[in-house]
Amino acid sequence: MSLDRRVTFYHAPQTRSSGTLALLKELGADYDLRLINLRAGEQRQPAYLAINPMGKVPAIRHGEALVSEQGAIFIYLADLYPEAGLAPAIGDPLRGPYLRWLVFYGSSFEPAVTDRSLGREPAPLARSPYGSFDDVLKTLDNQLEKGPYLLGERFTAADVLWGSALAWTTGFGLVPKTPAIERYLGKVTTRPVFARVAERDAQWAAEHAAAAGQG
Amino acid sequence: MSLDRRVTFYHAPQTRSSGTLALLKELGADYDLRLINLRAGEQRQPAYLAINPMGKVPAIRHGEALVSEQGAIFIYLADLYPEAGLAPAIGDPLRGPYLRWLVFYGSSFEPAVTDRSLGREPAPLARSPYGSFDDVLKTLDNQLEKGPYLLGERFTAADVLWGSALAWTTGFGLVPKTPAIERYLGKVTTRPVFARVAERDAQWAAEHAAAAGQG
Ligand SMILES: N[C@@H](CCC(=O)N[C@@H](CS)C(=O)NCC(=O)O)C(=O)O
Ligand SMILES: N[C@@H](CCC(=O)N[C@@H](CS)C(=O)NCC(=O)O)C(=O)O
Repeated sequence: MSLDRRVTFYHAPQTRSSGTLALLKELGADYDLRLINLRAGEQRQPAYLAINPMGKVPAIRHGEALVSEQGAIFIYLADLYPEAGLAPAIGDPLRGPYLRWLVFYGSSFEPAVTDRSLGREPAPLARSPYGSFDDVLKTLDNQLEKGPYLLGERFTAADVLWGSALAWTTGFGLVPKTPAIERYLGKVTTRPVFARVAERDAQWAAEHAAAAGQG
Repeated sequence: MSLDRRVTFYHAPQTRSSGTLALLKELGADYDLRLINLRAGEQRQPAYLAINPMGKVPAIRHGEALVSEQGAIFIYLADLYPEAGLAPAIGDPLRGPYLRWLVFYGSSFEPAVTDRSLGREPAPLARSPYGSFDDVLKTLDNQLEKGPYLLGERFTAADVLWGSALAWTTGFGLVPKTPAIERYLGKVTTRPVFARVAERDAQWAAEHAAAAGQG
């Protein structure tokens, strides 16, 4: 059983894929790690493009199947380890909100943060898939105010994604640290797994910098 | 059983939510329809913001749960009607690719199309969640070339989303009609459900225009 579930995980330290690493650890999942050195440009070399033609991390291979896109990877992995209890099952009243927030991350939050980080005008309200940055922030903040977790009392894989995402976006000043976000980060990113990921990542990042001739 | 599964569906004719209407029909799902007149600005009135604070369609209510974001709605509804066979089940080797493509739509394809439709520079490659428009198009096109459906021989909910999306984006000239896309559209959007949705939508759109004083 355990062997069947083993996946190959493509990771670059200190990037979006760090959230996936935290999830794998929270799940107690079985995985083979493949490090991609972004500084050395490995993500756009043929070997990796044959895995994920988008040249992006995170990506997961399970048997013949490629899973890319953080939202999809989180849904997939948490369902693969139901005993970890990080995914409300199909039929659970939390399943819908769980999917909503995992998908909202990539289809609304990231586009809003990208526009903001580039100082770009968002698209006109009706044409923008996310409306406005304030719509996104208010929707998220109101949800977090209910707390303690994104879906209430239950800690899920969605918190691993949102904890990771809010840590780096508030860190870069792209998202304001509202009281609800601050409390949420204190609840989620203080979990032992986050410190372990940060520690491993720092080590790998140093190795990658050295290998890319920048260390 | 059937009553339990009944959802409320918030729809605006001739918009992104038309794909969800097609899915509900393909699933033979039970739903209560609530029409939102975008021309009259109903999506930003308090009544609707209380349902979906983002002021966007499609949205689904199931019991107390709100599900928004097309990717999430599609995953949710197709899993709710397993007997329709439009969702590879958890454990099926197609489950991962199925999730990947449903999430890729909102987190990579839509942002790429939005930038293109506004004539904006995409973000620098490494910072853009979707890379470049060409990365997105090539990744999609290569997948469709395998055909006949997005996941091969099996028609799934992902095809309802991608068929709808490619119909309007090629219609507006935002996405080129490559041979693979053309063949795919011929396979998917010729299904009877698409014509039924278009017909109902045209009627509702006329009513909405009249009600908003533009008809
Ligand atoms: N839409 C993707 C975005 C992933 C992404 O942008 N990953 C970054 C890492 S933070 C990357 O691989 N960048 C490398 C590059 O494009 O050079 C997702 O949600 O997973
Ligand atoms: N991220 C959302 C985007 C939905 C969206 O942009 N819907 C449009 C309809 S095509 C809308 O409701 N526009 C109304 C408005 O913003 O005024 C999703 O994937 O569902």
